[in-house]
Amino acid sequence: MGDNQDMGKSFLETVKFDDRGLVPAIVQDQETGKVLMMAWMNLESLQMTLDKKRACYWSRSRNKLWLKGESSGNMQVVHDILIDCDGDTLLLKVSQTGGACHVGYHSCFYRKATEALSMEICDTLMFNPEDVYGKKS
Amino acid sequence: MGDNQDMGKSFLETVKFDDRGLVPAIVQDQETGKVLMMAWMNLESLQMTLDKKRACYWSRSRNKLWLKGESSGNMQVVHDILIDCDGDTLLLKVSQTGGACHVGYHSCFYRKATEALSMEICDTLMFNPEDVYGKKS
Repeated sequence: MGDNQDMGKSFLETVKFDDRGLVPAIVQDQETGKVLMMAWMNLESLQMTLDKKRACYWSRSRNKLWLKGESSGNMQVVHDILIDCDGDTLLLKVSQTGGACHVGYHSCFYRKATEALSMEICDTLMFNPEDVYGKKS
Repeated sequence: MGDNQDMGKSFLETVKFDDRGLVPAIVQDQETGKVLMMAWMNLESLQMTLDKKRACYWSRSRNKLWLKGESSGNMQVVHDILIDCDGDTLLLKVSQTGGACHVGYHSCFYRKATEALSMEICDTLMFNPEDVYGKKS
């Protein structure tokens, strides 16, 4: 068991990036425990997050560093970064400004499966994305 | 915004599996909000989870279905399954028997980064894995 804890290694040595050089980061509200989103980090974005204490991810769709909130203002102040037993998933405890989700909800997990396997909204709309990101053309 | 919510689709139609046919599932304690682990599901394990209301994953290391707790007894009763805005991450709200982590902790996220970028234990040991899984040869 002691071996599995890897406590002799540094935090950055313990992180296992996948074959794309990415690691998933679960993002949780520090105070309420609500899970807000999951995003991906490469080493550069993780180092920037550790340095600035603001969540920074790797955008797989835009293929670039993504300082959370740089467009929307909805920043995440990072209090703690935890790592799982296998070293291949991170958990960020944050204070979220506004909503985390680009659709306008507080959490990206704003829909849940019903018994009949349709979906229902289970979260609060925080902003109108057209006001924040502009209208889609 | 309405388009992004995809509320006209069924839950299963909304899930986007990756190129390996897998989707990550974050697992959170239903009562306390503690994040316990992240695992991966394929369609079969997701359908089994929906059917049995017990968490079932796809083990990438063993390449087979993995009914959580089948070896350890540490089952997860599933209360709700949420899906994120992009449809590519799930969030399970569960009641966890014993510890979720094979190392013996309540959560797989039992280590956190310190200011000096070493790690410290931040969780409770629930069982001795040698008692549960046997000694490693």
